[in-house]
Amino acid sequence: MFFLGYRVINTRIYTRILVHTSANARLFSSYLPPRGDFSVLTDKDLSHFERIVGRTAVCTTGIDAYNTDWMKHYKGSSKCVLMPTNVHEVSEIIRHCYERRLAIVPQSGNTGLVGGSVPVYDEIILSLSKVKKIFDFDPQSGLLDCDAGFILEHINEKLIAYNYMMPYDLGAKGSCMVGGNLSTAAGGIRFMRFGPIHSYLLGLEVVLPDKNGSIVNFGRKLRKDNTNLHIHHLFVGSEGQLGVITRVSLGAVIKPAITQVAMLGVMNFADCCQILSNARKYLGEILSAFELMDLDSMKSLRDNESLQNVFCSDPPFTILIETLGSDEEHDHQKMDRFLNEVLDKNLAIDGIQAKSIEEIDYIWKLRETISLSLMRDGYVYKHDISLPLEYFYKITEVIREKVKSQATRVVAFGHMGDGNLHLNVTSSEYKEEIYNRLYPFLYEWVVKHGGSISAEHGIGRLKKPYMVFGKMSTCLRLSKELKTFFDPRHILSPYKMF
Amino acid sequence: MFFLGYRVINTRIYTRILVHTSANARLFSSYLPPRGDFSVLTDKDLSHFERIVGRTAVCTTGIDAYNTDWMKHYKGSSKCVLMPTNVHEVSEIIRHCYERRLAIVPQSGNTGLVGGSVPVYDEIILSLSKVKKIFDFDPQSGLLDCDAGFILEHINEKLIAYNYMMPYDLGAKGSCMVGGNLSTAAGGIRFMRFGPIHSYLLGLEVVLPDKNGSIVNFGRKLRKDNTNLHIHHLFVGSEGQLGVITRVSLGAVIKPAITQVAMLGVMNFADCCQILSNARKYLGEILSAFELMDLDSMKSLRDNESLQNVFCSDPPFTILIETLGSDEEHDHQKMDRFLNEVLDKNLAIDGIQAKSIEEIDYIWKLRETISLSLMRDGYVYKHDISLPLEYFYKITEVIREKVKSQATRVVAFGHMGDGNLHLNVTSSEYKEEIYNRLYPFLYEWVVKHGGSISAEHGIGRLKKPYMVFGKMSTCLRLSKELKTFFDPRHILSPYKMF
Repeated sequence: MFFLGYRVINTRIYTRILVHTSANARLFSSYLPPRGDFSVLTDKDLSHFERIVGRTAVCTTGIDAYNTDWMKHYKGSSKCVLMPTNVHEVSEIIRHCYERRLAIVPQSGNTGLVGGSVPVYDEIILSLSKVKKIFDFDPQSGLLDCDAGFILEHINEKLIAYNYMMPYDLGAKGSCMVGGNLSTAAGGIRFMRFGPIHSYLLGLEVVLPDKNGSIVNFGRKLRKDNTNLHIHHLFVGSEGQLGVITRVSLGAVIKPAITQVAMLGVMNFADCCQILSNARKYLGEILSAFELMDLDSMKSLRDNESLQNVFCSDPPFTILIETLGSDEEHDHQKMDRFLNEVLDKNLAIDGIQAKSIEEIDYIWKLRETISLSLMRDGYVYKHDISLPLEYFYKITEVIREKVKSQATRVVAFGHMGDGNLHLNVTSSEYKEEIYNRLYPFLYEWVVKHGGSISAEHGIGRLKKPYMVFGKMSTCLRLSKELKTFFDPRHILSPYKMF
Repeated sequence: MFFLGYRVINTRIYTRILVHTSANARLFSSYLPPRGDFSVLTDKDLSHFERIVGRTAVCTTGIDAYNTDWMKHYKGSSKCVLMPTNVHEVSEIIRHCYERRLAIVPQSGNTGLVGGSVPVYDEIILSLSKVKKIFDFDPQSGLLDCDAGFILEHINEKLIAYNYMMPYDLGAKGSCMVGGNLSTAAGGIRFMRFGPIHSYLLGLEVVLPDKNGSIVNFGRKLRKDNTNLHIHHLFVGSEGQLGVITRVSLGAVIKPAITQVAMLGVMNFADCCQILSNARKYLGEILSAFELMDLDSMKSLRDNESLQNVFCSDPPFTILIETLGSDEEHDHQKMDRFLNEVLDKNLAIDGIQAKSIEEIDYIWKLRETISLSLMRDGYVYKHDISLPLEYFYKITEVIREKVKSQATRVVAFGHMGDGNLHLNVTSSEYKEEIYNRLYPFLYEWVVKHGGSISAEHGIGRLKKPYMVFGKMSTCLRLSKELKTFFDPRHILSPYKMF
């Protein structure tokens, strides 16, 4: 029943790949607020920073990669990247910036998709990439305490020795850092199983942008601690607006013994929903991912990356299902029952089940390469939305109809199990007409239908104009007041969420 | 190998039971700060409240049960209980209290263990028990939106029709309300499987104690939404200090098809740790609870409640293991392998496995009755601590040695899988000598060994004097400033966490 004779490619795409597009120059200047009333960096400041972190950790040349996001959509003009190696250096830097009213943008792996981690004007780039000394893992409890600059993949490499792993997984795992993952409330492909970062966050060390550059520890390396306000959770998803995360305490999860991956070809979205219900029922506690890709996603892979579908046919929808479990025989049985059910009921018209690590990798490669493949079209209007399932794919049809004469493709893929859709429109270059047809219409439609305009990518620069959509003024006012509470001089990441 | 001929008792103890003790009168007055500079309730205020909520919802007589916690350790002298039925009434009440500087204590099920939900002096009691109209559950996504006053057990009764359940479970489920569960970051017996309330919290409606009694919605009924600061998470565990939760959005979980429960008799704590490691390995994703009870816990059940152990022997430690899974055969196999392993290796010296709902209930009854049984000794010095496993039981031995000549019992039980121990000392009546031997020694010991002095019960009144232990002054200062940020007149729950 399962077709397995596809080409196996074992290349991983997890490391960051820079792709040039003709639209690199677009800086969304129409949204750009004027430069704030911050001081301008002087030689005296640079000398001061050199005294804190040492001369080699104050970089003023060759810093283009820090000034630019990986998609090259955003380019700042910072004159300086600082590379502290511990929390005390971070604190001294921030104290000086507070005193001098110098703007800062904290930067981790710089793998974000909304321009949150690069400067807008001349903000000092505070790289956390060298803050990676402390790594304290207790295999008995599964609790980890580590510096913010550790790269997700490197943490996993360390944890695997104890048969543990991190509870979240991202395409950017080869570059993104744990502090940045926390700051951006990173979602990813295991969200369905292990939940949001809030689930396993235990504590944070944060440097506050106050006059002392205060170092504060919130929570601690314990699964339960109800002795204070849970302030650390406020930093999750705060995009570096409230403080700089320098260390994290997290709960790891036991590395599952068995991973199974299957792909299903489906005729319509209603059947995809039925398959999801069946996956929850038959796969139960081992279900770890339920990803959707539409036909245009698969066409983009074929056209732009020469990556072939695994089916004989070209179904309108492709579903990727992953399980993580502890018992090979049990998990096989669960998967078999599930697959038999969805095929017997004709919910799926085609299907394959990976029988080796290489096949698993190839299937995930298909899913994870879609985003990159689209960039080869020229320009990508990217969206990362949450919607109730009844509207989950409807938005794609609405947008396809709206831009069909101008766009190269309208592509939908994403974490259907979490209600999170990546809806992308491509064209050969940036076109004002497409832009005007998309915005604010698309975001208004999403909010009107009970959705979120940024499910996991955050606000950054890209979505700042739309952040107000669907929010009460009281909520927005309170958010701004909290920003001022933590960052009274608004020196952290200006021009973005706040 | 498994002994199954024990007496089956199917009485549930989940509803709140009031037990009188001779120490009821003790009000911990030694910690009592003087009454704050709040206004005194007048007839004019009462008339105003009657206009807001109606005459029958302003109670001034027969309110003893609201003034007293269920253990009768704390007794306030409030003159008035208000019973609003919706968020707008809550808002108008709070606006009036803000204007008049009247202190308020929000109260849900009043099932807390640290005196957080009862007044200290004459604070107005704001009962959320009638705010229970909106109940909106979407079975396709598993997402729930409901008013704060719904009782946990009643929510479960509604969800079960859709094959879902709440991800947390508490002994107080028959009385506690979902808003209170959020406010106190309730833990309970399923924490090990489904994680903290942060894991499934999606959004909150809160009334703020500001001049408008502002109604604010944070987050929303979506699994992923990164369009703002995650402010709702700050209200989790805030014990009613920052605002009054009136509605919650939560993710429910699919009700597992199969529950298995086993009990093991163990000779020493090191073997208990080995059994925990084996449970994680063999039970994997279906493990849902790992509870410890020491011999003195079991003796208390026998002496005070005539509840018999399920073993032929009296082992020093009893472990309760629960699994929740989707496949009966698979789960049985996993449990069998686990039990065979721990018995073959002589890690357990005795064991039973429940073979019916009644047996499961009886085993859980043993665990959940310990706390009540101890109250029959007279007075209970209760502790709810987190500790790394290496010190998890050590503290019991240290305390037993310290108070052996004065105490009736020193008893340890709790959520070992989460590192959360309930260490209780009993005596026939409150004894100053025991008190002085216990405090601050016990809390200092816990903090010194990397633990928390309140794992899941919170601060309330009981632990206010010890809240500072192990915390940086910056952290405490910031917490206080956040309190003032949200509650500028400090009218919510005074004399407790802040």
